[in-house]
Order: sequence, then C-alpha cells, then structure tokens
Amino acid sequence: MSTTTAAETSANPGSADVGHDPRTGTAHPAVAHSTPAQVEAALQAAATAAPALAATAPTERAVWLDAVADALEAHADELAALADSETALGSPRLPGELAKAAAQARFYGTVAADGAFLDATIDHAAGAPPVDLRRVRMPLGPVAVFGASNFPFGFGVAGHDTCSAIAAGCPVVVKAHPAHPRLSARLAELVTGALTAAGAPAGTFGLVAGFEAGLALVDDPRIAAVGFTGSQSGGMALVERAAARGTGTDAHGRPARPIPVYAEMGTVTPAVVTTAAAVTRAAEIAAGFVDSMTLGTGQFCTKPGLLLVPAGSGLVEAVAAEASRRPTGYALTAGIADAFATGLADLRGAGARDAAPGDEATPGSSPASTGGTGTERLPERESESAGESTSGEGFAVTPTVLTAAAADLQPGSRLLEECFGPLGLVVEYAGTAERDAVLARLQPSLAAAVATAGDGDPETAGLVALLAGQAGRVVVDGWPTGVVGTWAQHHGGPWPATSRPEASSVGAAALDRWVRPVAFQDVPDSALPPAVREADPWGVPRRVDGRLVDRGGEAS
Amino acid sequence: MSTTTAAETSANPGSADVGHDPRTGTAHPAVAHSTPAQVEAALQAAATAAPALAATAPTERAVWLDAVADALEAHADELAALADSETALGSPRLPGELAKAAAQARFYGTVAADGAFLDATIDHAAGAPPVDLRRVRMPLGPVAVFGASNFPFGFGVAGHDTCSAIAAGCPVVVKAHPAHPRLSARLAELVTGALTAAGAPAGTFGLVAGFEAGLALVDDPRIAAVGFTGSQSGGMALVERAAARGTGTDAHGRPARPIPVYAEMGTVTPAVVTTAAAVTRAAEIAAGFVDSMTLGTGQFCTKPGLLLVPAGSGLVEAVAAEASRRPTGYALTAGIADAFATGLADLRGAGARDAAPGDEATPGSSPASTGGTGTERLPERESESAGESTSGEGFAVTPTVLTAAAADLQPGSRLLEECFGPLGLVVEYAGTAERDAVLARLQPSLAAAVATAGDGDPETAGLVALLAGQAGRVVVDGWPTGVVGTWAQHHGGPWPATSRPEASSVGAAALDRWVRPVAFQDVPDSALPPAVREADPWGVPRRVDGRLVDRGGEAS
Repeated sequence: MSTTTAAETSANPGSADVGHDPRTGTAHPAVAHSTPAQVEAALQAAATAAPALAATAPTERAVWLDAVADALEAHADELAALADSETALGSPRLPGELAKAAAQARFYGTVAADGAFLDATIDHAAGAPPVDLRRVRMPLGPVAVFGASNFPFGFGVAGHDTCSAIAAGCPVVVKAHPAHPRLSARLAELVTGALTAAGAPAGTFGLVAGFEAGLALVDDPRIAAVGFTGSQSGGMALVERAAARGTGTDAHGRPARPIPVYAEMGTVTPAVVTTAAAVTRAAEIAAGFVDSMTLGTGQFCTKPGLLLVPAGSGLVEAVAAEASRRPTGYALTAGIADAFATGLADLRGAGARDAAPGDEATPGSSPASTGGTGTERLPERESESAGESTSGEGFAVTPTVLTAAAADLQPGSRLLEECFGPLGLVVEYAGTAERDAVLARLQPSLAAAVATAGDGDPETAGLVALLAGQAGRVVVDGWPTGVVGTWAQHHGGPWPATSRPEASSVGAAALDRWVRPVAFQDVPDSALPPAVREADPWGVPRRVDGRLVDRGGEAS
Repeated sequence: MSTTTAAETSANPGSADVGHDPRTGTAHPAVAHSTPAQVEAALQAAATAAPALAATAPTERAVWLDAVADALEAHADELAALADSETALGSPRLPGELAKAAAQARFYGTVAADGAFLDATIDHAAGAPPVDLRRVRMPLGPVAVFGASNFPFGFGVAGHDTCSAIAAGCPVVVKAHPAHPRLSARLAELVTGALTAAGAPAGTFGLVAGFEAGLALVDDPRIAAVGFTGSQSGGMALVERAAARGTGTDAHGRPARPIPVYAEMGTVTPAVVTTAAAVTRAAEIAAGFVDSMTLGTGQFCTKPGLLLVPAGSGLVEAVAAEASRRPTGYALTAGIADAFATGLADLRGAGARDAAPGDEATPGSSPASTGGTGTERLPERESESAGESTSGEGFAVTPTVLTAAAADLQPGSRLLEECFGPLGLVVEYAGTAERDAVLARLQPSLAAAVATAGDGDPETAGLVALLAGQAGRVVVDGWPTGVVGTWAQHHGGPWPATSRPEASSVGAAALDRWVRPVAFQDVPDSALPPAVREADPWGVPRRVDGRLVDRGGEAS
C-alpha cells in the first residue's frame, strides 16, 4: 500500500497541495505531490494486489472494511478537527459525516458478504445440445478514485467509491483532493494501517497527490475503471480522457484501452410545490427548503437549486425571509467562493433578481429596487470572499435567494445551470402546464423533490411520474439533500447528472460499477470461481435453472 | 409503427439498399432508403409509444413477444428462403436460426414476466431519521437497433436487441442492414402486424433503411440508447457519435445529450490446446476447431480465430488437413469477401504462412514453398470473389489455415486482429510461459476456449482463470461459436470486444441495457411504480429491508 503522507517532501517543492482554513483564508502546511516514482509504486502495488484481492471471499473483505470503520471511529475527534481546519464544515456536520462514513464502510462489507452483487446464475443444461453455463461477476481490477471537495469523509479517501470498490474485490488508488490534503494523507495512513492489520493484501489501497498524478492514474493501462465525484467540467474531462486513452502500454505491451468512468457530477436539483401544498404548508416548506439549500453551505450535489412554486403563493417572499435569517457560511475553497460570486452575477445577468422578504416579486424589477435587506449585501460580500482573503473573512458566502420568470428558464440559459453554494432560485408557475414545461426544459438530475399537501394531493402521482423520467431519485415531502446508503438507494441519473445512467455511487448497487460478468461454459467445478461452484461454498444467492435460490434454500 | 417496405419507392431513386445473391453476385430488387419524413414518423411514433409501453406490465410484453415468435414460425419457410437469397447461409442454418430467434423472443418475454430484471428493492426505514426508500429499474425510452449482417434473424430486425428492449419496456426503431434489405422489410411487416394484433401500443416497433436514416436515429434527442452488432469500426463510430451528440433539440428545446451505445464488436477469439489434450485428442480437436471456424462461413463474432497448440504436436498440419477437406463457402457480401482477401494478404505480410497438411511447419518458410494443396489456390480465388462477380462464383471464400511464430504475435501486429471469414491462425507455443505470454498480448474478447485432456488436466484451472480475466465467456472442451440465450449467458467482454464491459447482448441480462434505476423516497404507494408498491401487484422478486423475497414468500 502506497501513501503519500504529510511528512513526505516532494522532489519539486513547488508541486504541493496547500489547504486553507476557509474561515480565515490562512494557508496550512503544504503536502507534497506524488513523484512519478511514487505514482508508479502505487499503480504497481495495486496491479499486484488485484488477483489476490479478487480471489478473497467477500466475507473476508467485510472484515477489512470493518477494520477501516473501526479506525475512522477510533480517530474521530482528530479527523473531524483536521477536516474542519480544511473545510470549515464544523460540528455536528463533520463528526456526523465521519460516523456515517464508518457505517457505510461496514455496509459495503455487508453487501459484499451477502453476495447478491455477484449475480451468480447457473443453467445446468442450456441450449441443444445442452451445455453447463454459469455466470458470475468478477472484479474489474485496480480502480482510480477521485474524491470530492464537499464530503471529506463520505466521498473522500475512505468514502463510497473506495469502500464499494474494495468490497467488490478491486484495489483502489485514490487521488487526494487538493482542498483537504492533510486530511487525505492522514486518512490514507489510517486506512492503510487498518487494512494491513486486518490481513488485506499489500496494495489494496494507495494514495497519490497532485494533478499530474491523477492524470497518470487515468492513463495507466493497469487502471480498469475510474470513480469521480465533482463538477461537470472535471467529470467530463475524465470521461473524455479515459475514452481516448491509448498512449501507454501495460506489462504485456498491450495498449491502454478505454475504460469506464463513473462520474457523479450533478446538475440543478428541482423541487416542486403543489398548489395545495402552497396553501397548507407554506411556512414549513420555506423553512425546509432553506434548510436543505444551505446544508453544508449549499455544497451538496443534491442541493435543491430550483424551487417551483404556484404563482401568488407568497413562497418567493417566504423563502427569502427565511434565508435572510440564516448566517453566512464558508465555502470550502477560494475557488468555490469565487465561482459562487460569478454564478450569482451570471444568474442576475440572465434575468434573475434578488427575492426580497415581504416585497412582492415583480417580474422585471431591478435588484436595486429592493433595498435594505440582508440579501442585498451579497454581491459585495462575495467579491470580498473570492480569492485568498486578507480581510480575515476567509471564503465567506451568504445564503441567497433569487427569483426569475418561468419564461426565462430556457435551455441554454444560465438559469438552468447549477450554482454550487447556498443559492436557491425560486420561480413561480402559473399553472400545471407552465410547471411541466419548465420541468421538461431542465437537465436530468440526481434527485428531484415534490412538496405536497399530503396523501390526497391530486398532483402527486403525475409529478412523481414526470420527475422519475428525468431524475435518479424522487422525494416526496422531504428534501433531496441527505443520501442514505442502504439497499434501495440510487444515487445517479441520466447524463449529465452522471456519466453512466445505470450506475449508483451510493448504496448496495455501488458495487456493481466495479465488476463485469463472465460466463463459464462446461468448466469443471474445480476450475470455477467459488460463487458458481455446485456446492455454493461462499453461500451466495443464485438463480439456478431459472429459479431463484437463496443460499441452498428454494426461494418460493 | 412505421416500416419501410420493399414496395415503397424512394423520393431519390439512387438511395436504396440492394441485396445480392452471394452465390452468384446477382443483384436483387432495390429497397428504398427511408425519407427524412419516414424517419421522423418512426421516431415520433416511438416517442409517443414510450410512456405507454413503460406503463405496461411485463407479463403483457411477454404476450406481444410470443406473438412475434408465432409470426416468425408461421412464415418460417418464406423467411428462410428470403434470407437465403440474400445471405447464402442455407439450410439447416437459416431455419435453425429462425427457430432460435422465435425461442429467444419468447425467452425475453419470460425474463420480463419474471421481473427480477427490475431489481425491485424496498427499505422501509432507511437512515436516521428514517425514510421509506424504494428502487426499481425504469425503461430508458426509444432504442435504436443496428442489426448485424451475419445473423439475419438472431441479431436482425427481430433479434436479441429488439426483443430484449421491448421486453424491458422500450420502443425500438431498427435500422435495416443493407445486406438483407428485403428480409428486413418483410420481417418488419410481420413484427409490426404481430405486435399490433397482440395489443402493443402503436410505435412499439419501427424500421428505417439507409445510412443517413441510421445517423438520424443516433443523433435524435428522442432516442435514449443504441444497440449495435457488427464491426469494430462501425461500433466505435457509433460510440463516438453518440458521445458527441448535442446538435439537435427535443420537443422541449433540450439539447441532445450523450447516450449509451451497446456495441458488440468482437475481436480475435482464442482457443488453447493443453499439452495433454494435444496428445490424447488431436484429431477430435482439429475437426472441432475447423467445424467452429467455418460455421456460417466463418462469419461469427465468436469464430475461433487463433488456435494455440503445443509445439511439435502436429496440430498445425492436422488442422490444415481438416480444412482442406471443407468446401468453399460464400461470404455474405462482396465487401466481406474483399476484406477476407485483403485480410489474408495482410496476415501473410505480417509473417503468417499457409499451413500445409502433412508438411511440417517451419518458421520462416515462404508460402511458395508449400505447393500443390487446396489452400494454395486461395489468394486467386479470393481476388476473384472481391467485388461483384461476373464469373458466376459470387462471393466465394475458401476455408484457410495460416500459421505464424508465437514471437511474431506482438501488440500492433495484424496477426492479433480479427479476420472475418473462414480463417484460422494456428500458432505453436514452446511451453506454458510462451503460451501465457501470447495470451497476455491479445485484445480482450467475447469468448475464449480451452481444449483439455479431461477432468485431470493440470492446465485447465490456470487457463480458465487467465482467460476469464480477458474474455466474456470461457468454454472448456467445446467451441466458442453457438451462443445460447438463457439465464446464465453472458455475451460481452472488455473493450474493444464491446463498448460496455458490463453489458450482455444475449441472455436474460440483455434487458439490463435498456433500463436505469430510480429511487423513490417517501412516495405514497399510489404514486409508486407497480413493482415497488407494497402489495407487489406485478408479483416480482424483491429485496425488502435487506432480505430477498420472491413474490411474497421469504427466500430462505
């Protein structure tokens, strides 16, 4: 297992990740980028580990992942403090995210041990003349993981991608996120130590740092797949690079070939308020929406960025009033704070205007016409917060509510693009036709939400069906932030929300990304992978001769 | 349902598909390409049908697919004769392929009705505070299908892609293969009639013809996915086009976005003879290999193109002797015959030489040194068969066996690329190290085979494990041609064997390509898709709160 630790120094001292305290903009000590030799060592260790890892029983992998979870919990205070110094996400968010990350590491072990993800299938007499045919999913091989800035634990070094890949039997090389280099290095030390102590093969996990190191991972013929969580531009660059790779050669002289990139990128997440809900639950909805859009300072890929509300419902004003009572937060990085300021300016340029509490929204009114409220100070605050702060305010961003005319939400408009940070665009619709027309113009999304008046709301079923056609998850009377990692979760969606509409980066199905099926025809039992041997030594559920069989017992 | 029939005339008479009798090269009557208006009608019909189709119960779709199967069988003689006139694949192959296509149509209906492909999963209390979370796979929408030249029924208008997509709930628009335009048009008439009579929504199936029509399908925002079976160049062109699409807009003004292309392309399929097998089963292996490599005149994507045999085993000569007794066949098209001739010339240019029966192979000997056998006449025969024949020999191609030194099989060499047609390259290896080195240099493949000496063969397990790392299916003591479509089948493989290593174009898993998961969070029962309603009205197997449940009964 190869890790780049904070103690290492780079051959090129100028090549280093430098984290910052978002509250002040102060730089932390630098963490060196990986040298080419370190990257090569991590890749070779992963390639060497791959067959050993693939041969282990999923129950063994569950033991390793339990050890990773134990290590996270044993160092919870230290890790949360380190994460806070680089993210300002604070408490209870960071301790909570760490606890959830530990739980999800254990859950992926449970999913591996369950074995259903292997999709083991046996036909004793397929075709004529009959052959014995058995299909099972096999690990792809070493996986490169690019973690996200916004979830240092959940989608970080030991997050969903890493743990689901190891559960599936694939070694992982993580590219450290430059926004939290010291946390990444420390997490890698702990993960490596836990895996080693638990008996995982050397090379099961590695960490590299630096932009060039990340590109080297994507290009290397030993890497079989890529997991990414982040921006559309970053994800699409990786997708294109992985599709075009073919410059290097592997140990056998074979050219590199395109590999799958599972990029979870995100778009604008819509939330719709029904006519009846706007009458009966307006205050609750306004508070819930603002809670959700400001969670983690708005830096969630499922942040509800667009709230569609019935015209004249007063919800534009209610939401603005609610947001005006929320405190300023801190963006994770100077770049995010800068992009937030630019995004707000661009949205205003595209026809959005500031929603004022209690000030009846009038299409066409200029921002200058709504004076004296908290939100009015935003442009100035944002411009102060862009770049490294010298004022001591760090990367401050203030919850902001904009509104726009439904007719202005047209494909190609900035109004339909995501603005990462605590920004909500609240748009009134004049009837269900206009509501559905706006929804139809949105890009597909990871999630979508509907706020209803309860069980009898006549609009619920239609909205759910419509949104299911363009989102990976539909939420009723809840908010899209907060993605639980369980058996039934799907965290994905059609392009460009993700690069692979069939894939989930959270929940049991996350393992499916790191395996591919292989069929075995008339292969002797002793030469078969354990999951499809006649005796089912791994004890996994299977379909045998067309019937589902759960670990030796008939299913029905 | 929109079809272009043989009776239609094109607005531009120069735009038509012209099939040929491969035995004579004689042209058949032309079938007009679809006009832009016809393509638009097919696309709009499919888009209109999509929601209706998605809402049907899988058991209904099974009824439609049974009707398609019945229609194929009711017109078996007519269809086989029509197919033979355009492919020369003859009998028993064409009646057999038709019967298999009918059976596979019914099988996809069975898989749909079973419902496991929906992957229905319910967590009644996920996370804290708990939410009700339910995941189910939903149809993607209209699918464009590009059939293959070499399986006019199995991978044609009503083949695996079409039937699996309809089973999954997706309308299909097929682009007719230009090598069998009249069969395609007739099949479309029958399929359309059968679906209509069985109650499928209008627009469930459509056919278009012509290169431009095919491009229009791939580019159209209403098309959600593409299925393709054919050459690497064709498949990769579609993959790139679908990844880059973004010029058109859909009915809501949304830009087209990248969509998945499931391209089954194929590479060289290797077969390996173990040391012991070469001693005990040489004659049987030589005959079996030649049977497999000449099946369908060598025009199978799983044709064993490379046979690795122990040095000095005599198998090079035995295979050549066996092949010399096989009759000349006919390529499907002039283009394939031409490419076969070019391929043989290129292979010889890359170091391969003709294997002669009984003439001990000597590395470095020139083709001219082996005279007087049937295979020696091949280059002349092939050059005669390229292009439209005026000699009455049509697109004749003769079974050919080449051999080459193992050391010449290097990445980038033509020796490692597929040659479509009845060509087998037999290569001697000097030991397991050389054997494995050659295997390691191959491109990944759809299938791979091992010929062993039976249960005690010490090489079997190692070879199976090695080949499972680079093939979609591993066959022991059988041959890779002949892909049964059952629950356990996997017909796929890593790039460039296919564009999607996780996908299968044959067997129950073929449906998985045409669906994507959606999670429903706290959605009222009445607004849920049937498969995840509490009462399981469709009667599908599900995972409920972590436990597998088969249609209401506990699994274990």
